[in-house]
Amino acid sequence: MQTQVGIVGAGPAGLMLAHLLHLRGIESVVLDTRTREEIEGTIRAGILEQNTVDLMADSGIGDRVKQVGSVHHGIELRFDGRGHRIDFEELTGRAVTVYPQHEVLKDLIEQRLSDGGEIRFGVSDVRVEDITGDTPTIRFTDNDGTEEVLHCALVGGCDGSRTQTRPLIPSPDVRQDHFRQYPFAWFGILVEAPPSSEELIYAHHENGFALISTRSPEVQRLYLQVDPEDSVDNWSDDRIWNELHTRVAGDDVELKEGPIFQKSILPFRSFVCEPMQHGRLFLAGDAAHTVPPTGAKGMNLAIADVYILARAMGEFFESGETTALDSYTATALPRVWRAQHFSWWMTSMLHRMPQSSGFDLKRQTAELDTVTRSRAGRTLLAENYVGTPLY
Amino acid sequence: MQTQVGIVGAGPAGLMLAHLLHLRGIESVVLDTRTREEIEGTIRAGILEQNTVDLMADSGIGDRVKQVGSVHHGIELRFDGRGHRIDFEELTGRAVTVYPQHEVLKDLIEQRLSDGGEIRFGVSDVRVEDITGDTPTIRFTDNDGTEEVLHCALVGGCDGSRTQTRPLIPSPDVRQDHFRQYPFAWFGILVEAPPSSEELIYAHHENGFALISTRSPEVQRLYLQVDPEDSVDNWSDDRIWNELHTRVAGDDVELKEGPIFQKSILPFRSFVCEPMQHGRLFLAGDAAHTVPPTGAKGMNLAIADVYILARAMGEFFESGETTALDSYTATALPRVWRAQHFSWWMTSMLHRMPQSSGFDLKRQTAELDTVTRSRAGRTLLAENYVGTPLY
Repeated sequence: MQTQVGIVGAGPAGLMLAHLLHLRGIESVVLDTRTREEIEGTIRAGILEQNTVDLMADSGIGDRVKQVGSVHHGIELRFDGRGHRIDFEELTGRAVTVYPQHEVLKDLIEQRLSDGGEIRFGVSDVRVEDITGDTPTIRFTDNDGTEEVLHCALVGGCDGSRTQTRPLIPSPDVRQDHFRQYPFAWFGILVEAPPSSEELIYAHHENGFALISTRSPEVQRLYLQVDPEDSVDNWSDDRIWNELHTRVAGDDVELKEGPIFQKSILPFRSFVCEPMQHGRLFLAGDAAHTVPPTGAKGMNLAIADVYILARAMGEFFESGETTALDSYTATALPRVWRAQHFSWWMTSMLHRMPQSSGFDLKRQTAELDTVTRSRAGRTLLAENYVGTPLY
Repeated sequence: MQTQVGIVGAGPAGLMLAHLLHLRGIESVVLDTRTREEIEGTIRAGILEQNTVDLMADSGIGDRVKQVGSVHHGIELRFDGRGHRIDFEELTGRAVTVYPQHEVLKDLIEQRLSDGGEIRFGVSDVRVEDITGDTPTIRFTDNDGTEEVLHCALVGGCDGSRTQTRPLIPSPDVRQDHFRQYPFAWFGILVEAPPSSEELIYAHHENGFALISTRSPEVQRLYLQVDPEDSVDNWSDDRIWNELHTRVAGDDVELKEGPIFQKSILPFRSFVCEPMQHGRLFLAGDAAHTVPPTGAKGMNLAIADVYILARAMGEFFESGETTALDSYTATALPRVWRAQHFSWWMTSMLHRMPQSSGFDLKRQTAELDTVTRSRAGRTLLAENYVGTPLY
């Protein structure tokens, strides 16, 4: 087998890369160890920056996100028992769209297949070889058991945080891994109940952070900050509701209860590897970096990476020039680090640190006061949340 | 002896309180253990918010600060070897004035004395009594050895961070002390040399923070972040200049060297006590709170406190109403905590924490990048630095 770009991973980064390359007339093959059903059925949150929605629309896959995505013009920050709205529309003229990640993946898979694109689902034993030569090779076993060899000019490493492509960049000689573990986790539940709020509520409380969000008109997604060693078994439904009511207290919010049908604990970490490339291998999305979910940046960063990468690969195939490819890391990283900072900022401003003192709590509340009472503060938060323009 | 307000401490808080009370026709006596020469001769930095300069001018003591104070329309943040100007004037229409604290004290002392105000310098053995009754008493020994008893209706506790009035608020029953120690100090030097820069330079570097400031056209004041256990004896002039050149590197800045004639190490801490009042005792300035110097807020907070306090005391003496006095703490504290946050923000953004990882350094640089590239970010910093309006 032969193609121009071999792409490992059919997540948002890999599929969007294949799609954008196709629009430039560049062929690719996408490989994933999961089946199409697994990929389309793994329900994950999704807050899309306006950049992401615009890129979907401009590249011809925006119909469904425009139809069924829910546009959010702001969020609420709660502290000291009162809500403070951050009005994205007024402050930045932009908005975010709530549209789950698996719906983005459905749109991308359908478009790739109708464009004649090749996605190999359910493959196994993927091995990327010779990335420092001119003709990298990807060996894999197809879902029918056939051993395959894919020859390509460039490789996209888009296989998520449990990536097998990142380790191909030698560490520590070439690759540096920057890691930060946060001393807490999010306990998330799915609830059969209508929305408690039209917009997301980010609540600061001395017991810890809470987040009120909505998955659909019938299902809410609620989170509580917990200890990373905590277990879902420690949380009865009663305890969950009590804690949510405590942390999201106030006259102006009414928490809608309902049957809890899923409980899970999400770890919290930040990760960046540098460089995001080596030889003919280019990492994008979670394979290169992970953000905690507080800033809602994960999928958007993956899309921003491949927007830059597709342009650079386009230049390479059109003219043989490697300038843009060579500077892929330098072009992509500043946005990645600013997103890491924003995610850290939202996290550190809203969560209770395990060792935090009375001083720290009061300082945090003063920060929330400083940010929400100032138009500049609200704007700084809003422009980072909605995302600075890609193009 | 009898007066309306007994004021302990002839620093910026105590003298400005006496001055503002006088303008409302309220008598006071100010006591200080130091001599007038000591007070006027203790050279300390001073960056005055526009609020402070405006209040000095509006209350009739603004001539000298307007004449000889140096108006600064911005500061520079340096990171990754490049300077980024925060243009206060353009962003907020306001500015700060560099005018040392002892000059403010000279202006206040001269005005108080020419208004017939009573300041007792060089007193000793000051004891404030009966603050929970209607007639507090201040016993002290005058500078000629006479035992004096001052009867008053209200007491101002303005005796700085080594206060003897704060402990009169019973702890922990009434008073809560919020404290934060920072894991570093500033090593400060005075240098005989003309300014290296017209405006202050706040420099971020992986070796630690550095600050370039000017005391006068002939004297510079320069600081380096050091370990709090460090000693001036470890710092030869050569080592100091090498380290300053390293931390403030770049084509666009030329460090002017000269003889170093003073070296000292300043500890870094934040402190707030709540409430700032008890019975007839009202704390203001450093007696109630301490900020690290990074945000240049210390003296300005003292002035903001007594602006609120003089109004409340005025209402009390004019009408007997205690409403404003009762809510003094609630009125003053939000500004105090926002100043604590701002000082912490400037500190945490610019200093190297002892345990910081590669991730933390990159995240910090991304924060500086986020703040300086965004008008909203620069505005948020500028409006906190110049100070939100008092009135």
